Amino acid sequence: MITSTLLDSISRPVLLLNENQARENIRIMAEKARQSGVDFRPHFKTHQSIQIGRWFRDYGTTKITVSSVEMAAYFASDGWDDITIAFPLNIRQLSEIEELASDVNLGILIETIEAAQALGLRRSSRFNIWIKIDCGLHRAGVDWQDTPRVHAIIKEVQKFPNLHPAGLLTHAGNTYSARSPEEALSIHTETNKRMRQLRENLGIPELSISIGDTPGCSLSKFFTGIDEIRPGNFIFYDAEQLEIGSCRPEEITVAMACPVVAVHPERDEVVIFGGAVHLSKEAFLHEGTPSYGLAAETLSNGWGSIIPGCTVARVSQEHGIIAVPTQHMSKFYPGGLAIIIPTHSCLAAHLMRRYLTLDGKYFEMMPV
Amino acid sequence: MITSTLLDSISRPVLLLNENQARENIRIMAEKARQSGVDFRPHFKTHQSIQIGRWFRDYGTTKITVSSVEMAAYFASDGWDDITIAFPLNIRQLSEIEELASDVNLGILIETIEAAQALGLRRSSRFNIWIKIDCGLHRAGVDWQDTPRVHAIIKEVQKFPNLHPAGLLTHAGNTYSARSPEEALSIHTETNKRMRQLRENLGIPELSISIGDTPGCSLSKFFTGIDEIRPGNFIFYDAEQLEIGSCRPEEITVAMACPVVAVHPERDEVVIFGGAVHLSKEAFLHEGTPSYGLAAETLSNGWGSIIPGCTVARVSQEHGIIAVPTQHMSKFYPGGLAIIIPTHSCLAAHLMRRYLTLDGKYFEMMPV
Repeated sequence: MITSTLLDSISRPVLLLNENQARENIRIMAEKARQSGVDFRPHFKTHQSIQIGRWFRDYGTTKITVSSVEMAAYFASDGWDDITIAFPLNIRQLSEIEELASDVNLGILIETIEAAQALGLRRSSRFNIWIKIDCGLHRAGVDWQDTPRVHAIIKEVQKFPNLHPAGLLTHAGNTYSARSPEEALSIHTETNKRMRQLRENLGIPELSISIGDTPGCSLSKFFTGIDEIRPGNFIFYDAEQLEIGSCRPEEITVAMACPVVAVHPERDEVVIFGGAVHLSKEAFLHEGTPSYGLAAETLSNGWGSIIPGCTVARVSQEHGIIAVPTQHMSKFYPGGLAIIIPTHSCLAAHLMRRYLTLDGKYFEMMPV
Repeated sequence: MITSTLLDSISRPVLLLNENQARENIRIMAEKARQSGVDFRPHFKTHQSIQIGRWFRDYGTTKITVSSVEMAAYFASDGWDDITIAFPLNIRQLSEIEELASDVNLGILIETIEAAQALGLRRSSRFNIWIKIDCGLHRAGVDWQDTPRVHAIIKEVQKFPNLHPAGLLTHAGNTYSARSPEEALSIHTETNKRMRQLRENLGIPELSISIGDTPGCSLSKFFTGIDEIRPGNFIFYDAEQLEIGSCRPEEITVAMACPVVAVHPERDEVVIFGGAVHLSKEAFLHEGTPSYGLAAETLSNGWGSIIPGCTVARVSQEHGIIAVPTQHMSKFYPGGLAIIIPTHSCLAAHLMRRYLTLDGKYFEMMPV
């Protein structure tokens, strides 16, 4: 009798999810937050799934972060009622935001006086206002050294009774470019220092400080002077986090199962059904060359160790090309499956729209 | 009275589509194929939409190319009955492929004897077999100089009465790395020469030659010795094609309308709601730096010229950062819209899953 395994059923790229380890990743981060006395407000843009969101409830999570108004509405529909939209206020969505705030304790990020005014005029709803601070990433936010501007925004917020000045919020996404735990931790520490310095300069000790990158939150043992952490990626981790040193290989909980469609021993390459529309075009520098993912051993019910030197060297729309050291070429054959740890799990998950757990359950993500 | 315009209704990233120009792009390519005496088998992975596919019918198209079994089934459901799946045979999908071939004149790409055998044993269906040839892209296919291997595959194909040896197929995707029309045309010309040489070496003149990249097909006036062209991107074009020189700015037919959420005059940058999950992480080198798209003038019912020097310099999951020359900063303000010509329209379309035409119609893409 032939026993059918999880992987036998796969005929096209599928994002596998190791539920047990993902729950363990949640447990560890929730416990670290509890022990450090900081609020835990995980970012749900990583998984975008109501079912996976419920796992967080099992570890005591009551507050969440999302990256869009639609995502806030999606999770609100499952009973989440304390949500921060960690994206600069989009005033073209003010009506939707106002409606949402009538049901949900809603946190909004602003970085201008005009944004405070726009929200303040929506009197029927109450908003928690976070001032977005730029501690060096230079993506969005007010420069952490620009105390007068932050002060002016807070003064404006205080004019409106429906606006509650919650605090100062930053995202130290520059830890993603770190290439060692020490480097990531150093950015993390410096970011926290800048946020505390800004709060001190403002002279408003009751303002909360919220930070939120996975490398910093995974590596740091202490969150001195911090009130809230918002990591997201840590539930899955990925090849880039491994490269940074934020996680161990066995803590990575998603991987793409990709049918092998051709092998090219003459150039030590394998062609998989699994390209930019599955893994994304996000690359990281792995041993000096761009990598779109790392290949792991294919097991009958999941994946094992990362195969040394096996990296997705190129992707086009549906094709992926794995560069394989000669001694590992025999692991790949047409009709087999390659298992790829994606470079950036958030983007791979976003592209796939669903997960297959190692015990065979499908979880859908929010509709796009 | 305030007249509502197309763009007023937009509150989150939307992919705009200029139907008139897209139809013109189709007409021009279909006409060029007709005049050159080659079959026109456009690649539908670019648009993935039944409605847009019907525009091609208006210009006489009866044969199409797709990149997956699912996409073939989707277009077959709208009556397309001559479809090539331009992806190496995935033997994990043999049953689906066999079923599809009972309704559709189905072209399959193979590059091994084993693939020929796998299809040959599915006796109930007939398949048109294209041997995938690698003319220098090194993605998939048999090296064009390896006549014996191609010959052996054809001999195997001929053993099975249900397999029809259609010909030799290549994708000169290396034209995408060209940075001038001359360079792209030179790759195109060399590719065609190699394909003709292979056919001559094989001594089987009845084998068709199929080629298919947008730069080559857009720039070339002649397809000497070629039997079929399969371009896809030309219906939309994009910033990368503009950089190569395959199209003129006014021939680009898709652009992302993105709400502006913050402006940073202190560093001449604009933050938009429009990031890696909208534009993709595909970058091209624009004036020496990576660009995820180019900003164009926002018009009330679409977009105008590309604004010189305005490039999407960075993207994260939902954020995009436009680097803006100082004199153009006043064009961007929170609550306004930025219009971005994506780097690679195929990937941006894939991410968005629908289009908004400039006259206000929504077209959905195939479900993922």
